[in-house]
Amino acid sequence: MLKNLFNRLEDIYPELVELRRDFHMYPELSHEEVNTPKKIAAYLKELGIEVRTEVGGRGVVGTLKGGKHGKTVALRADFDALPIEEETDLPYKSRVPGVMHACGHDLHTAALLGVAKVLSEHRDEIPGTIKFIHQFAEEATPGGAKPMIEDGCLEGVDVIYGAHVMSTEEFGTVSVKDGYFSSAQDDFNITIRGKGGHGSQPHLTVDPLVTGSQLVVNLQQIVSRRVDPQQAAAVTVGSFVSGGANNIIPDSATIKGTVRTFDEEARQVIEEALENVTRLTCAQNGAEVDFEYIKDCPSIYNDPEETKVVEDVAKGLFGEENLFTGAPMMGSEDFAFYTKEIPAVYFTVGGRSEELNAVYPHHHPKFNVDERAIINIGKMFLSLVTK
Amino acid sequence: MLKNLFNRLEDIYPELVELRRDFHMYPELSHEEVNTPKKIAAYLKELGIEVRTEVGGRGVVGTLKGGKHGKTVALRADFDALPIEEETDLPYKSRVPGVMHACGHDLHTAALLGVAKVLSEHRDEIPGTIKFIHQFAEEATPGGAKPMIEDGCLEGVDVIYGAHVMSTEEFGTVSVKDGYFSSAQDDFNITIRGKGGHGSQPHLTVDPLVTGSQLVVNLQQIVSRRVDPQQAAAVTVGSFVSGGANNIIPDSATIKGTVRTFDEEARQVIEEALENVTRLTCAQNGAEVDFEYIKDCPSIYNDPEETKVVEDVAKGLFGEENLFTGAPMMGSEDFAFYTKEIPAVYFTVGGRSEELNAVYPHHHPKFNVDERAIINIGKMFLSLVTK
Amino acid sequence: MLKNLFNRLEDIYPELVELRRDFHMYPELSHEEVNTPKKIAAYLKELGIEVRTEVGGRGVVGTLKGGKHGKTVALRADFDALPIEEETDLPYKSRVPGVMHACGHDLHTAALLGVAKVLSEHRDEIPGTIKFIHQFAEEATPGGAKPMIEDGCLEGVDVIYGAHVMSTEEFGTVSVKDGYFSSAQDDFNITIRGKGGHGSQPHLTVDPLVTGSQLVVNLQQIVSRRVDPQQAAAVTVGSFVSGGANNIIPDSATIKGTVRTFDEEARQVIEEALENVTRLTCAQNGAEVDFEYIKDCPSIYNDPEETKVVEDVAKGLFGEENLFTGAPMMGSEDFAFYTKEIPAVYFTVGGRSEELNAVYPHHHPKFNVDERAIINIGKMFLSLVTK
Amino acid sequence: MLKNLFNRLEDIYPELVELRRDFHMYPELSHEEVNTPKKIAAYLKELGIEVRTEVGGRGVVGTLKGGKHGKTVALRADFDALPIEEETDLPYKSRVPGVMHACGHDLHTAALLGVAKVLSEHRDEIPGTIKFIHQFAEEATPGGAKPMIEDGCLEGVDVIYGAHVMSTEEFGTVSVKDGYFSSAQDDFNITIRGKGGHGSQPHLTVDPLVTGSQLVVNLQQIVSRRVDPQQAAAVTVGSFVSGGANNIIPDSATIKGTVRTFDEEARQVIEEALENVTRLTCAQNGAEVDFEYIKDCPSIYNDPEETKVVEDVAKGLFGEENLFTGAPMMGSEDFAFYTKEIPAVYFTVGGRSEELNAVYPHHHPKFNVDERAIINIGKMFLSLVTK
Repeated sequence: MLKNLFNRLEDIYPELVELRRDFHMYPELSHEEVNTPKKIAAYLKELGIEVRTEVGGRGVVGTLKGGKHGKTVALRADFDALPIEEETDLPYKSRVPGVMHACGHDLHTAALLGVAKVLSEHRDEIPGTIKFIHQFAEEATPGGAKPMIEDGCLEGVDVIYGAHVMSTEEFGTVSVKDGYFSSAQDDFNITIRGKGGHGSQPHLTVDPLVTGSQLVVNLQQIVSRRVDPQQAAAVTVGSFVSGGANNIIPDSATIKGTVRTFDEEARQVIEEALENVTRLTCAQNGAEVDFEYIKDCPSIYNDPEETKVVEDVAKGLFGEENLFTGAPMMGSEDFAFYTKEIPAVYFTVGGRSEELNAVYPHHHPKFNVDERAIINIGKMFLSLVTK
Repeated sequence: MLKNLFNRLEDIYPELVELRRDFHMYPELSHEEVNTPKKIAAYLKELGIEVRTEVGGRGVVGTLKGGKHGKTVALRADFDALPIEEETDLPYKSRVPGVMHACGHDLHTAALLGVAKVLSEHRDEIPGTIKFIHQFAEEATPGGAKPMIEDGCLEGVDVIYGAHVMSTEEFGTVSVKDGYFSSAQDDFNITIRGKGGHGSQPHLTVDPLVTGSQLVVNLQQIVSRRVDPQQAAAVTVGSFVSGGANNIIPDSATIKGTVRTFDEEARQVIEEALENVTRLTCAQNGAEVDFEYIKDCPSIYNDPEETKVVEDVAKGLFGEENLFTGAPMMGSEDFAFYTKEIPAVYFTVGGRSEELNAVYPHHHPKFNVDERAIINIGKMFLSLVTK
Repeated sequence: MLKNLFNRLEDIYPELVELRRDFHMYPELSHEEVNTPKKIAAYLKELGIEVRTEVGGRGVVGTLKGGKHGKTVALRADFDALPIEEETDLPYKSRVPGVMHACGHDLHTAALLGVAKVLSEHRDEIPGTIKFIHQFAEEATPGGAKPMIEDGCLEGVDVIYGAHVMSTEEFGTVSVKDGYFSSAQDDFNITIRGKGGHGSQPHLTVDPLVTGSQLVVNLQQIVSRRVDPQQAAAVTVGSFVSGGANNIIPDSATIKGTVRTFDEEARQVIEEALENVTRLTCAQNGAEVDFEYIKDCPSIYNDPEETKVVEDVAKGLFGEENLFTGAPMMGSEDFAFYTKEIPAVYFTVGGRSEELNAVYPHHHPKFNVDERAIINIGKMFLSLVTK
Repeated sequence: MLKNLFNRLEDIYPELVELRRDFHMYPELSHEEVNTPKKIAAYLKELGIEVRTEVGGRGVVGTLKGGKHGKTVALRADFDALPIEEETDLPYKSRVPGVMHACGHDLHTAALLGVAKVLSEHRDEIPGTIKFIHQFAEEATPGGAKPMIEDGCLEGVDVIYGAHVMSTEEFGTVSVKDGYFSSAQDDFNITIRGKGGHGSQPHLTVDPLVTGSQLVVNLQQIVSRRVDPQQAAAVTVGSFVSGGANNIIPDSATIKGTVRTFDEEARQVIEEALENVTRLTCAQNGAEVDFEYIKDCPSIYNDPEETKVVEDVAKGLFGEENLFTGAPMMGSEDFAFYTKEIPAVYFTVGGRSEELNAVYPHHHPKFNVDERAIINIGKMFLSLVTK
């Protein structure tokens, strides 16, 4: 059967390319998606698939009941674009000034619609139920995954798979890893409120700049002493702004940073230590402080058993030499929220091509990928839902 | 005799007020003084005083040989203005947009010219020689004192006195202190050049923000451990700017600060330690650094013996209750350069008046002083040159 | 065949227990082993196994050529004891005051001798060649592994296995993990030489205590900024001793610490950073420093493919629920040196028993294990050499 | 009259030397003085001077009413010795093992008794009242000054003078300075209670050694930022002891230090900041802390007007070139407590003599001074009470 599905997918490839290019030309920003979900819903309905729209806001969920008994499997693709001015020379370059599909979500969407089409045509042979989760606002904080889950998109689902095309990985490859696969990302914003004054009279001031420097130094201990050495973690201060003149002690200092972790306990330890160290470092210098900790996205956790399944599928499709399983993916993905709920696997599919000059990193104005990744994502998904 | 001199000074007070107001209406910026020195030179020549112009650049030095034997005494007044837009309602408000005598140098000049007039009229009774040092560019770095000294303005001078009218001290008072009377001011500018990168991958970067924070913390040890506890010193970082985003480790950090000292050895210790600590803190983190240390103005050193003379004169003129001798003056004055060469005393004369609304600090757009300080400076100078 | 081997092993179990207890009663310290290697060599010779003694010093290596074609597989057991006074009530308690087999090496040796006996009796059926590596001085730095390797004990060996009985793991379990399985351990010793003096005159001193404190704080950055967050690493200062009186600035400070890593690159980064940070922190405070970095033992690297073999064997023997594969073992083992040379796997075998009060940690005066671990290690080894 | 007094003093010099040597041979430790106060009291009574004993504990106060009208002037000498084994070859070497007059208090006492004798013989000519304050326990904390004041020794006293012979200042000199003349000394003792553990698992510990290091670094800010730069202050950590092994994170760290200040406000600022910084640095690392701050002795404040009197007397007696007025004396003296109550002056009198090998510092086992300092102290005191 799988061979038939693959053949059909290749048959409709030109149609999927056209779909992808249409999405690419008319990108819509996170939380502002209007036409994209409409097009998706229309396409799915046309296939006779049951469709729910406005799931969790702007999400679209299609449900296809197969003719055979089986599990309920969800496949997820995201469909939002980025506030970037496209700088490619592609014929299907963005028509929307300042907005661009610079991360491949257009391709994800086209691939998932192709899978839906193929599966809908073979409904009777399909085991169980397939959910097509078209997610809005993956790039934003907060994103679309959480409200879609709250609106029930995972109800009754046994396992969910998600895929990302990568311009940094060679076309024809698949990467996956069991356990934590992306890092959780949290941000913190600190404003230290001291009392300014003349540089010659520090005793009449509360020096926020020295306090801030001491704080940055103290923060180093969180990773070096508080976190289990076997748990990856980074606490980075990305911005320190205080004062301006040589001889004036400023009133305040602003410090901004990020926290990256895989393990949830490490994440918790860091959040608590960060607040504690910040408040007490400021207090010991007599300074007031505004402390804000923004929990963004957790870490993707790939179910080990399901990951083996994905690995086996990928080996079968692309050969063992094209499957990479070693390293987690830095950067965060709100697919992580699905992985908190049910068994889930997120994997990446190579899209890099020197020939096509598809070599720029994600979020780059010249970002591009080999469109044939539609086929590769499609084949992965088709294999996973029919195994 | 002194009584006659004082009477004459009071006689010509209206003329001196007119002079002062003329300077006030036509202020000239440091190193751009053209008409002010011309007026001064003309006035002194008119009095029959020997005049040298363009001393060290734009300075004017008058020399009056008294009829009696005695020391050579120099009196100094500065005549430059500031880049400030005057906001007073005075009839003699600045006529030059963006330039203002907001520090009282106009009054200093008028007072010294008045002293010159009175003394020139009593030449035969005057002991020794009087040098009238009209200095340009006191507000600038580098200022006028140093080049005027290099151009010989102190040659043959036994002692020099300088005075400053203060809007922060009550009219009718004099303040002075033997030993160090103003702090030396040096500035430093540091640029730490690291290597930026993503906040989740600190090991691929050289983090200039953490390096800078560590540096600011390390600098605290200079005052706490390297400087003699009995020597006043402040090392202040006034500005720390690095990065901007939460999750990007920046390429560089910029740190600016100031150093205040009274003692020359402490100053030297700090300069050396600052450079050493900066370079090695950066090196230990693998960062490059640009380090700049700008020696501005040294500390005024008031000769103890001469200070007693000034104190006695002030007591006689204004009463013991109006003489303040306790505290050095924070802030720097390039009169300090004269005090490095010969016995010297710098003192301040009150100019504050609630009645006249002359209550704003120096360098304020509404700065003003009680003009009768002309008389008080004049009487101090007349007393000092004839004692 | 394997079943026969296992049966024979169980037959000779009482003899192996006797052997183990004999080693236990007459423990010998690292690098002082005399009778233990003699006994081992005699036992192996008795079995008709070719024996090399004094390998790399005090090691014993037996070689058994099997009757069938196959790989050369080495099995390693260590035989040194610890300078601990035994506090158990066992009938076979140590007869040597102050020396004790408190880490199970007696059991390792007995198990390996049992395996040798069984295999020697089935020589014709055995594929390839078996090397019995009896190692001296595992507990010492430097230990016996390195000189035994240099003396050729791994020549011609295709793969090596090692096992450790654990009083902290339940009897009947096996733990193993591919990749890094134990941490590398390095030590550092730092003496900061300042210049002492009176507490009221810090400027006349070079304060080694403040320098040392600054150093400890600076060292935190090594793990937090220099090491890849995905690589486990700990830099710990375990000792800081400086001064004694409240009011005397001491002449020196002594700092001692340890470094734990799994990854060799991380280890290298830390060694370099540690020296650099130490030298430049001292230099910036004007202090001299003696810096010593002692590279102890590297990290055990378990060959992934061979680890799967070990895992399969363990599952077969003890059931999947008794195989633990998640976590590396903290602490170091000089088996690591073998793993640098050829494919190798080190695994642990549970020996904990509440019933026998075998619950004390390793290196404890009451340390004990369930002796039946001899059988479990033996079965693992027999399986691995015949697979 | 003064000339007569001086002549008489020189007459009785041999008797005073004998007195001093007797005190020297039979030294008594602070708070353990029994015979010394008895001898003093007996000597004074013999002179017909009114005597109060056990003042504030072990003090002796003599009161001599002069025949003329005048102020009440107190003269103070201390009489306790130190727990030091004398190592000189003097014929009058200490007869008490382990106890020594190694600071000159024996000489102070002899000089004051000599002054009492001379004055008692010229009672009629003496203006006002003279109080002879013989103080116990100057070397101890707490010392004798405070309880003697509380017991009324300063009642009715207009001014008090104290003198110290110095082996570090040339015989024939006097040193004094108006304002703060000795530093206040406080001590602090800190025990940081963390939670120890293995060096490879910092996350399971609360690391007191890193906390302590951070604390020492943070303390540097107290002097650099909190104290007025124009106020001398030193915060010194003299002892840091934590741990012992390379690889064990210790349970606790012990930190001891001293605080030196002249200004009472600076002292207060430091005490508060020290406690605050200590408690919050420990709290931010999760450690408990025992904090002890021991207020020892305040700073001697020499009354400016009275200091001029002392300076004039010294100039008259020893010549202007032998009067040193520049620097405060580091180290503390509980004479400071008297200076908190009434106008007071403390000065030092040179006792160093190369010829006599009287060159060792105070508290040294070979300490000695030129005994003729008895005359010099005596003449200073005689002059001061009769001026």
